[in-house]
Amino acid sequence: MKFVTATHHNGNPFVGLVYKENIIDLQQLDEVYNGGPSQIPNTLIECIEHGDAFLKKVNELLNSLSLKEEASEAFYSFHEVTMHAPIPVPRKNIFCVGKNYREHAIEMGSEQDIPEDIIIFTKAPTTVTGPNATIPNYKNLTNQLDYEGELAVVIGKRGKEIKEEEALDYVFGYTIINDITARDMQSRHKQYFLGKSLDCTCPIGPWIVHKSVIANPNALQIETKVNGEIRQQSSTNHLIFPIEKIISILSRGMTLEAGDIIATGTPAGVGKGFKPPRFLKSGDEIEITVEHIGTLINRIE
Amino acid sequence: MKFVTATHHNGNPFVGLVYKENIIDLQQLDEVYNGGPSQIPNTLIECIEHGDAFLKKVNELLNSLSLKEEASEAFYSFHEVTMHAPIPVPRKNIFCVGKNYREHAIEMGSEQDIPEDIIIFTKAPTTVTGPNATIPNYKNLTNQLDYEGELAVVIGKRGKEIKEEEALDYVFGYTIINDITARDMQSRHKQYFLGKSLDCTCPIGPWIVHKSVIANPNALQIETKVNGEIRQQSSTNHLIFPIEKIISILSRGMTLEAGDIIATGTPAGVGKGFKPPRFLKSGDEIEITVEHIGTLINRIE
Repeated sequence: MKFVTATHHNGNPFVGLVYKENIIDLQQLDEVYNGGPSQIPNTLIECIEHGDAFLKKVNELLNSLSLKEEASEAFYSFHEVTMHAPIPVPRKNIFCVGKNYREHAIEMGSEQDIPEDIIIFTKAPTTVTGPNATIPNYKNLTNQLDYEGELAVVIGKRGKEIKEEEALDYVFGYTIINDITARDMQSRHKQYFLGKSLDCTCPIGPWIVHKSVIANPNALQIETKVNGEIRQQSSTNHLIFPIEKIISILSRGMTLEAGDIIATGTPAGVGKGFKPPRFLKSGDEIEITVEHIGTLINRIE
Repeated sequence: MKFVTATHHNGNPFVGLVYKENIIDLQQLDEVYNGGPSQIPNTLIECIEHGDAFLKKVNELLNSLSLKEEASEAFYSFHEVTMHAPIPVPRKNIFCVGKNYREHAIEMGSEQDIPEDIIIFTKAPTTVTGPNATIPNYKNLTNQLDYEGELAVVIGKRGKEIKEEEALDYVFGYTIINDITARDMQSRHKQYFLGKSLDCTCPIGPWIVHKSVIANPNALQIETKVNGEIRQQSSTNHLIFPIEKIISILSRGMTLEAGDIIATGTPAGVGKGFKPPRFLKSGDEIEITVEHIGTLINRIE
């Protein structure tokens, strides 16, 4: 199941489900089937908070799909809607794991940069933007804009002191993040936050794939292309801190909540890693593909 | 004007105004005066978003105060209510300025730690707790729990690329933050976030003082006591990056929004600065006073 947030051409946002070549407006489908007002919440973050009740409802709707013809009015082709980040306004900053692939830690410095303890920084909610969105080039602020393709985890329920062996129970699903970074700001300001938090430098999407579809999130191919050229190519089985460990460490003393988003780190091959560096230029197209999830494409202004 | 978030003994939260020895429930006062349902929103963050319309409404209510006797039913003494953080659930992480007092930068390392460029990190919204709240001691996670008394700024309206000379127009008011920090986690994990984001390690309050009451936020005495002993004593006129500069730098490329909270940094005298260090112990009481604002008191579990 792939969940999206999108808007109709009339501008109304909705929670959608990718179904074959279409997107189903879940509220609309529910209303068509059941007459009265839908029990599907208005935003995907509220759907996630509803937990199993939401998934049960979606499954009921899907099971009745073939039975009723009128369902078609809740179906939209991709060109009829505009896709947004699946969670366009997160309720807190995005959690990001730093230097979580060995070869990336080395390209950012040396073997000494391979972390023994997990590194966590955040990106402001104002960084979030959608698939196909144009990213400002921030020419007045940076000349070292860089890409970072990452698998992201979306938390499904509140938890604290979560054990590794139970960690995946707390996941709702997975998506893709491009952790766009102004490298000069990142190093100048010591703590990463400012260089990571320019508006619209966190494209997310194109959808959240429910965890039931992903057999092992720590074994997914991940690839980033810039203008069609492969720059990053790895697998999440190279994560220094695998997903269960990230969730377990984060939740020691800090409560995780439904809708929280964790970017798991980027593999080697970022622009800064090349000699000479290959930072992003106006018009560049960045395309991140994660196996079993999809492809997130954005272009620099 | 001092704005609070509190709950009545029946458990209902309300937006209040400190008035002499009392707290006025603003919604209730509005209903008493105007009959119908109140125009005052349910949460202080929404009040702040209403901007001048909210302040105008509060001033109208205050101006009619002496005229009507029945107003008294909207008045509560401090012992009749429980105070919370003025914004109990911020919509993003708390922005924090690192090493923003020269002597504190030195006590954390050496003269070389005095920043040339501003250092920004964040605390998760789950860290927020209220005045008089007990702070967990996290004995299983840290033996270096430390205090940091700070002046905090609450943003009043959305803005980007804010000029220093206009920065205070974007402020709603000021409050006090205790940026409680697990020093061992802070250094072990390199980026500060994890050591700064244990649940309930960001007491805020006791209220937000509207900016109209503060002639110059860069000239306020600030003092932290632990069990009655003065540990930190300085003035915000020693801020390396004064408030206007913080707002201006943060908003370069990043949109600030109503309700955003910025902790402006802590003066010298934190526990880690002593030789030997004097970290917090169970039962310690921390009392932070900022001139013209008030006193924030919390105790370690």
